[in-house]
Amino acid sequence: MATADQGRRGGPAAPDPRSAADRLLDVLGAFDQDNQALTLTAVARRAGLRLTTAHRLVGTLTRWGALERDQAGVYRIGLRLWETAALAPRGVVLRQAAMPYLEDLYEATHENVHLAVRDGTDVVYIERISGRSAVGVRSQVGARWPLHATGVGLALLAHAEADLQEQVLGAPLAAFTPYTVTDPARLRRLLAEARRTGYAVSDRQITDDAVSVAAAVFGAGGALVAAVSVVVHAEDAHPRQLGPAVRVAARGISRALGWQPR
Amino acid sequence: MATADQGRRGGPAAPDPRSAADRLLDVLGAFDQDNQALTLTAVARRAGLRLTTAHRLVGTLTRWGALERDQAGVYRIGLRLWETAALAPRGVVLRQAAMPYLEDLYEATHENVHLAVRDGTDVVYIERISGRSAVGVRSQVGARWPLHATGVGLALLAHAEADLQEQVLGAPLAAFTPYTVTDPARLRRLLAEARRTGYAVSDRQITDDAVSVAAAVFGAGGALVAAVSVVVHAEDAHPRQLGPAVRVAARGISRALGWQPR
Repeated sequence: MATADQGRRGGPAAPDPRSAADRLLDVLGAFDQDNQALTLTAVARRAGLRLTTAHRLVGTLTRWGALERDQAGVYRIGLRLWETAALAPRGVVLRQAAMPYLEDLYEATHENVHLAVRDGTDVVYIERISGRSAVGVRSQVGARWPLHATGVGLALLAHAEADLQEQVLGAPLAAFTPYTVTDPARLRRLLAEARRTGYAVSDRQITDDAVSVAAAVFGAGGALVAAVSVVVHAEDAHPRQLGPAVRVAARGISRALGWQPR
Repeated sequence: MATADQGRRGGPAAPDPRSAADRLLDVLGAFDQDNQALTLTAVARRAGLRLTTAHRLVGTLTRWGALERDQAGVYRIGLRLWETAALAPRGVVLRQAAMPYLEDLYEATHENVHLAVRDGTDVVYIERISGRSAVGVRSQVGARWPLHATGVGLALLAHAEADLQEQVLGAPLAAFTPYTVTDPARLRRLLAEARRTGYAVSDRQITDDAVSVAAAVFGAGGALVAAVSVVVHAEDAHPRQLGPAVRVAARGISRALGWQPR
């Protein structure tokens, strides 16, 4: 797409092939889990923009409420973007439907409870309820991890279309601990096991002291929507005991979303 | 700001004084609580854009993941915007810190529990835990209501700077039920009472069968950050019993945010 204001402002620098709209989104995209608070200079560097362009776009975003500027001149994501994003059907809307069942699962286990959705070959965490004495986990709300290494990811992958399974199984599989399953044949067996039992188990694949037990959530018409999990200390893990509880919670959420058992 | 691509694409229509960045944000702003799913035509109408411009911007937003398009061609807010917005310190970050205390308050009361922040002269709801048999309320996550009519709003207003109080008390006060307090002198007494007792009471001001009891949440250094409330059926309401529980929860959240009692 043509860069609209390049001709007027470009000067001697090479033309920026991005449209003004793309550049605005690149400013938003400069913020992530590891970069939640950025100076103007950092925004410009991360978005690949000249300081004057970054200054103009950050001003536009701040006036709209997508960014907030503190007294030290540091920018963070603003409340109005949060309000708008709260309309995402896979974000807050799904979370609200799921919350009572996540609460029930938490009450029954007092362990970390997670809700996640798939995006490409990753999972994105939508909700987490953490027990105060529960095992430390690396899944923040809004964080993403590869499908093959997490309990929720395995539950989603086990019920995904064959094309997606082949895409994941055919690509290199990243390891996060010595226990991460990176052998496609072994991963295929894990997925078959998850389909057979109704729950997936990720044994110390993300951190070497945590086991996740997860089940898939379906919507109206049987569409795969999300997955729910309980994450426990590896030494206390009894997947066969946790599996049914996680399945019950996943079915409760599915029913709330309009799913009906065949 | 000059509209960059107007000269190239404007045609005979009057020039659009908005910048490309502003127009992109107007497309996002077309989505709200009452308009969560929009066709391209509806986006163009609500954003005040020609169809070709709306088509181009919606395409840019969809490629980035700020919007998602379903098979019927209807657009909704997308997962990537939700991920980015999850970085807002007053959204998900505050919510995560508050969640254990909101849970405790819910366990103690089994009524609707709310967490809200101030934006201008409104409150914006950040979290809601709903009892399945609790009173029906009009506060969705992401929704906004005027400060003067809600429990959380009164708690925030009671501890706000004098300038903001005068701004609210000096403007016309909207009524939502026959019980909504629209008399500035009466509102001033409610605020004084809230400061004296440590909790604010909104008696049937939003819906005529619900009473809200709310307390303010402070951050490190004593800055006013948010308010937490319990909303109950008007006939069962005992603010003097609920007040202390709400205060305890509010203080717990405040401590988690780094606040210390003087």
